[in-house]
Amino acid sequence: MSESSYSVTELALLLGAEAVSSNDLIDGIGTLESATGTQLSFLHNSRYESQLTASTAGAILVTEAHRNDVPTLALVVDDPYLAYARATALFAVNGHATGETVSPSAVISSDAKVAADAIIGPNVVIGDRVIIASGVTIEANCVIGDACSIDENTRLAANVTLYSDSRVGKNCLIHSGAVIGADGFGFANSNGEWVKIHQLGGVRIGDGVEIGAGTTIDRGALDDTIIGNGVILDNQIQIGHNTIIGDHTAIAACTAIAGSTRIGRRCTIAGACAIAGHLTIVEGTHITGMSMVSRSISQPGAYSSGTAAEPHQQWKRNAVRFRQLDEMSRRIKKLEKTVKQQNIEGQS
Amino acid sequence: MSESSYSVTELALLLGAEAVSSNDLIDGIGTLESATGTQLSFLHNSRYESQLTASTAGAILVTEAHRNDVPTLALVVDDPYLAYARATALFAVNGHATGETVSPSAVISSDAKVAADAIIGPNVVIGDRVIIASGVTIEANCVIGDACSIDENTRLAANVTLYSDSRVGKNCLIHSGAVIGADGFGFANSNGEWVKIHQLGGVRIGDGVEIGAGTTIDRGALDDTIIGNGVILDNQIQIGHNTIIGDHTAIAACTAIAGSTRIGRRCTIAGACAIAGHLTIVEGTHITGMSMVSRSISQPGAYSSGTAAEPHQQWKRNAVRFRQLDEMSRRIKKLEKTVKQQNIEGQS
Amino acid sequence: MSESSYSVTELALLLGAEAVSSNDLIDGIGTLESATGTQLSFLHNSRYESQLTASTAGAILVTEAHRNDVPTLALVVDDPYLAYARATALFAVNGHATGETVSPSAVISSDAKVAADAIIGPNVVIGDRVIIASGVTIEANCVIGDACSIDENTRLAANVTLYSDSRVGKNCLIHSGAVIGADGFGFANSNGEWVKIHQLGGVRIGDGVEIGAGTTIDRGALDDTIIGNGVILDNQIQIGHNTIIGDHTAIAACTAIAGSTRIGRRCTIAGACAIAGHLTIVEGTHITGMSMVSRSISQPGAYSSGTAAEPHQQWKRNAVRFRQLDEMSRRIKKLEKTVKQQNIEGQS
Repeated sequence: MSESSYSVTELALLLGAEAVSSNDLIDGIGTLESATGTQLSFLHNSRYESQLTASTAGAILVTEAHRNDVPTLALVVDDPYLAYARATALFAVNGHATGETVSPSAVISSDAKVAADAIIGPNVVIGDRVIIASGVTIEANCVIGDACSIDENTRLAANVTLYSDSRVGKNCLIHSGAVIGADGFGFANSNGEWVKIHQLGGVRIGDGVEIGAGTTIDRGALDDTIIGNGVILDNQIQIGHNTIIGDHTAIAACTAIAGSTRIGRRCTIAGACAIAGHLTIVEGTHITGMSMVSRSISQPGAYSSGTAAEPHQQWKRNAVRFRQLDEMSRRIKKLEKTVKQQNIEGQS
Repeated sequence: MSESSYSVTELALLLGAEAVSSNDLIDGIGTLESATGTQLSFLHNSRYESQLTASTAGAILVTEAHRNDVPTLALVVDDPYLAYARATALFAVNGHATGETVSPSAVISSDAKVAADAIIGPNVVIGDRVIIASGVTIEANCVIGDACSIDENTRLAANVTLYSDSRVGKNCLIHSGAVIGADGFGFANSNGEWVKIHQLGGVRIGDGVEIGAGTTIDRGALDDTIIGNGVILDNQIQIGHNTIIGDHTAIAACTAIAGSTRIGRRCTIAGACAIAGHLTIVEGTHITGMSMVSRSISQPGAYSSGTAAEPHQQWKRNAVRFRQLDEMSRRIKKLEKTVKQQNIEGQS
Repeated sequence: MSESSYSVTELALLLGAEAVSSNDLIDGIGTLESATGTQLSFLHNSRYESQLTASTAGAILVTEAHRNDVPTLALVVDDPYLAYARATALFAVNGHATGETVSPSAVISSDAKVAADAIIGPNVVIGDRVIIASGVTIEANCVIGDACSIDENTRLAANVTLYSDSRVGKNCLIHSGAVIGADGFGFANSNGEWVKIHQLGGVRIGDGVEIGAGTTIDRGALDDTIIGNGVILDNQIQIGHNTIIGDHTAIAACTAIAGSTRIGRRCTIAGACAIAGHLTIVEGTHITGMSMVSRSISQPGAYSSGTAAEPHQQWKRNAVRFRQLDEMSRRIKKLEKTVKQQNIEGQS
């Protein structure tokens, strides 16, 4: 947590809430259940309504509808969750406040261009012809391959790897363990043995992108793999070569997207999905958790697959029937025919 | 393998076996099939019983029931698998035996407190206000963010990343590539664009926890993400923000757990499962491999989902029927009605 | 991209195409759609046939059947995709061309043997008794544990971790974030608490193996985990302890294979599959994406499981029926009996 504090009046102004006059100081954020008298809280989900009246938070972000249920000080906004998001930025610790910008243990090619105010952490390695823009932070032990570029105010957490020819936009955040630009999985088969297709494309990442811990984005085979502006990727996602992710699409953890697939803008893809290669998913598609997407989606909307967990013995009996589904279907058809025939005979 | 060796008599004592008098030396462990005359072996699974009588192991851990089937020397214990586990500790190599404790290439904040006997490997980076307790080993290229603490005898393998505010208990082992404390996936939507919710909580890991390679545990949004005592996590697991894992729960590789879910104590969760957010899974739950858990589980027991692989052509016919399941169900109902009606008419 | 260039005549010779006489220079490769007049392209998939006649590529790899459809210069080969794979090697940039072989910031045990021409990048850490052969490249921030060996011409990209006792063959490529030789997930249960089984085996990787970013291969419990020759592994794959992967098998991203499973030679396993432990998968098996394999496979062929995404509301109705499958099956059986009975009665 930070050591910032704001008066409630200031906070209301900063968060776009209805004006309030109060010099009470707020120095953090808490849930309705845990927030103290110097913390801000918020109600955004009806599930937590019952906690509102007992909350001891110093001030609470609510919609007009809940103004009168707030036992302390209400900060009335249109969208409490969005206001909460903005409040978190006020209380976030903004990185290392060390005086030095380039750690003496960083190994930087003489051929790289690093902005004077960029922060380069210990043991960072930066290759030839790399361009690091103003306001960039590269934390400890990152490796930046040749001919990469990282645009203004982007931050790489510790232990991120960028292969050569990776271009990252402005205001991005890439988390630890992410690997950008490793070879796509391309091989031709020659008499049962695999011949590598060297991956000659790169990776282009737009502005305002967040990439989670351990996520891997492969370089393109010939053209680039492309991540649009404002895309948010959770942890341990895999994005194959030449895949294109549209602007402002959100993908949750552990989803795998095979190569050359195009995901439209403003899609939301839940966790643990698998999306096959060479597909086109239209803008505005929502895919629920652990779905298998093996065909293109041309109509926006929600899509799902899979079945939910049930008690094991019960599942066992059902799962075994899955393998008889086609047979079951044919037996139903036959029954329908027979019964219809009997009906006709019965009526004759 | 180590260079330790023990007499069979010593081993019996150390492993809690029935006393045996033998000065034969044992210098390692092998399977029933491969163990040599100076190695210890064990029988814990009836599947391997047939290998017992032909084994050339110097000594074999068995239960009373198999004492007489051992062709060489029997070490009789209640639980051969547990005794084997304890034996592995005797033969494990215990880390780097280098003389130096802090590598000269480590970059340690002057503000960090590192115990005199802690081992800090090459290129390790340790931030401000970090506390490293006695007996801790931090292997090469780990990065420890500000205000972390690592308690006694915990070991971090090479290339582990701890973000700031991660607190790790005693006697833990964290494997390479693990990332603790990266931002949870929290965003509010503002007119189709994502606004980051800065993640202000931390991560608290109990005592005796093992965390596998490439596993990611996100920091909490406001409160902490919590891993209980004695929890064992395999490789490439993803644990979302504010999730709580109860003591002594075991989770196998590649399972993803979304945010704010509470897993009870002594659960066992197999590999490649996906567990949705905001659920409660009761103590003593067992979930089989590749299950999708989308609702809370309030009764202990085994749960499953999914269907097992079958020959592709057969699967294709069955899978297409899955999309007709509801229709099939309604057709069965209709048939039942018609047949019942015919029965009544036939009897009239 | 590289700065290599070849005349079309030279290329035809290098790629085994029918001889062509042309001094036109080719300096790269592009898709049929994007290739310029100095680039090579190829047609390998009937889906792209329509792009052939409009392509402006300088030369195009095709089979005899398409020779006359090429608007520019045809390079006729038996297998255009294979020829393309070979062409990529001609245009790939071959690593760092720095003069130095061992970076001054690398930390190398005095007890390690490193070939004079091996390239060891910045901040690489190499343990005791390690053997690095001729032509090996180890990029920045890799950590190589004690007693590892890396054979001729193998390349480790940045941030790879090898635990002790990992042996890697010739001509391998291991991508960033991969972790080789972490502990297998082995624990015995003692009164509800987990007792670690120290993992005393190692990892053996054959020749010509490629391992993707973030892939983890655990060390064996007693014997070694083994990856055969010519195996290709995509990103974020998990391979459990003592698993054996046969020669020339290909596994796509995010597939998890539990411990002690044996996968045969020349298998192809698609992405996001989960394969249980202690199974045997026969040579020549193909498993489609996101399949759950819980039994051994003794007949070569294609295997599948799972169901594909469908519109959410429709899926919801079908998925709920899955839990009634066994009941549905029994109702069908009962209907068949009743109808048969009615038939008999109707005929009597």
